[in-house]
Amino acid sequence: METRTLSLAEIEDLSLRALVAAGTSVENARPLAVATAATEADGISSHGLAYIPIYCEHVICGKVDGQATPKRETTAPSVITVDAATGFAHPAIDLGFDALVPLARTQGIAALAVNNSYNCGVLGYHTQQLAKAGLVGLGFTNAPASIAPSGGFKPVVGTNPFSIAVPGAGGDPALLIDQSASTIAKSEVMKRAREGKPIPVGWALDSEGQPTTDPAVGLKGSMAPSGGYKGVGTALLVELMAAALTGATLGIDASPFSGTAGGPPRTGQFFIAIDPIATSGGGFAALVARLTDTIHAQDGARLPGDGRNKHRIQARIDGVAVNVATLEKIETIIG
Amino acid sequence: METRTLSLAEIEDLSLRALVAAGTSVENARPLAVATAATEADGISSHGLAYIPIYCEHVICGKVDGQATPKRETTAPSVITVDAATGFAHPAIDLGFDALVPLARTQGIAALAVNNSYNCGVLGYHTQQLAKAGLVGLGFTNAPASIAPSGGFKPVVGTNPFSIAVPGAGGDPALLIDQSASTIAKSEVMKRAREGKPIPVGWALDSEGQPTTDPAVGLKGSMAPSGGYKGVGTALLVELMAAALTGATLGIDASPFSGTAGGPPRTGQFFIAIDPIATSGGGFAALVARLTDTIHAQDGARLPGDGRNKHRIQARIDGVAVNVATLEKIETIIG
Repeated sequence: METRTLSLAEIEDLSLRALVAAGTSVENARPLAVATAATEADGISSHGLAYIPIYCEHVICGKVDGQATPKRETTAPSVITVDAATGFAHPAIDLGFDALVPLARTQGIAALAVNNSYNCGVLGYHTQQLAKAGLVGLGFTNAPASIAPSGGFKPVVGTNPFSIAVPGAGGDPALLIDQSASTIAKSEVMKRAREGKPIPVGWALDSEGQPTTDPAVGLKGSMAPSGGYKGVGTALLVELMAAALTGATLGIDASPFSGTAGGPPRTGQFFIAIDPIATSGGGFAALVARLTDTIHAQDGARLPGDGRNKHRIQARIDGVAVNVATLEKIETIIG
Repeated sequence: METRTLSLAEIEDLSLRALVAAGTSVENARPLAVATAATEADGISSHGLAYIPIYCEHVICGKVDGQATPKRETTAPSVITVDAATGFAHPAIDLGFDALVPLARTQGIAALAVNNSYNCGVLGYHTQQLAKAGLVGLGFTNAPASIAPSGGFKPVVGTNPFSIAVPGAGGDPALLIDQSASTIAKSEVMKRAREGKPIPVGWALDSEGQPTTDPAVGLKGSMAPSGGYKGVGTALLVELMAAALTGATLGIDASPFSGTAGGPPRTGQFFIAIDPIATSGGGFAALVARLTDTIHAQDGARLPGDGRNKHRIQARIDGVAVNVATLEKIETIIG
């Protein structure tokens, strides 16, 4: 793969110009461009610039309204809701966070429910923003159904990730967990299908719920839940939080995140922000330090988020090597 | 195994009398006795009456202060804390819920942080109380370390369960998830060790992190996380919520829940109660019904909590068959 090294500012600028060229308002494109640069900085190239041409396609086909104006409401003293109005998730979440952060600080805990939304990209990017504000951030986002229930074989819930971000020194999270409910990301199975390569047993199941090594068969069947029924439990937890509690569209009824068919998916996101001083009386930071220090003291042991933190520190200095083929697609969109 | 069938009222009464005979105040014994009957009703006999002799032993040896008075505080407009004062978790949680339920109804979301606490038994019992009050209940509880970090082999977090309970018709939850972060409960490995039987590969690891079929070796090593690193992630999520956010004792520093050594474990519980009307604008119940109906419509498919709901309905009518050996132990305590 031919690559070119770009600074984070260049990645943000390219993303912004492509999204605007495709018909996105600058206000809606900006948060998505910022997130794209941050995602590349974190080393998650599958969800960085590679997604920009897809986002642009979705604005053009109407899966996302690039000109949407998200609407925010305070529905209870500690609850904010945002109707994303079938626009991008990022501006809707940012609008919500502008109210959620001060609210969590005064109330001790507060929630943000986002509906009529879209794929929010890397969930941990959003919970990190809460951690940067000194809050513990919990996040949930749902997706079109691809995991079957225990004892069944037809998909009923998405690969539905949850995330928790814990405030650390200097703006980077002390700990960041961001994990989906499936054994492997669906995008990995799709990649193998495109490449005509088999998948390992345990990644996906056929339409009768039996193991398969054929990615195309797996994509017509279901994704294997991580840890069996406990993975289904995690996906259901996330579905309840991100779809049912927000009044969004369930994974069984949502249009696909990939391709141009089906209109807006109208899925949801749910965030909880907690002031650790209010709940712990001040002991929180020392307990987190004791936990992370004990883990790092073990030879070879690592914490979720360690890889992202390390990559980010390097990327700020050196920039990020990005795929030239992706850059060419983006430059074509910009015109 | 010889059994005798008791009504739920008889189970509650026996539990109460044994706990009081061991030195527990009636106020502290009552919530534990009620939970024990409910746990037997739900068919979770491993955590029902079988635990009463252990609880009594722990009062006698001082691992639990049977006469403790939990202290409740409102530390922020939407946050309640309870210091369990090294007493039982159940009265501390009940005291917290008395304030949490009305607070969540007015605020939309509210949190309860419990520290200086003890093993809370079946976590889903507690979240169910929130669901009975019409709220979505999320719960987290930590335990002495038995799961190693990714890349390491020394335990750093407990088998740490999370739970979510969703309000349903007639007081029973529409959906109840209550799952630990390990492949299998530690009590199952302990049972095999007592019986001198091997364990399947995948249940536990030796002290170098290698698979073992010897339960005694596994107990000296670590419990296998469900789904590999994602099980570690779930255990860490719970540790952050139940211990760090409550100012309780981390699993690495907590005394064991079993045996009489080490004094009070001083672990923690964290609960979040959410008013689904405030977050969803009223769509919540219909979305939950659509999700659960779709799953039940599949041949053989089941939801977490289905088994407990079914057992409970039967137990209210028929009572529960309990182990006579356990009953004899309890009757000896009562004297």
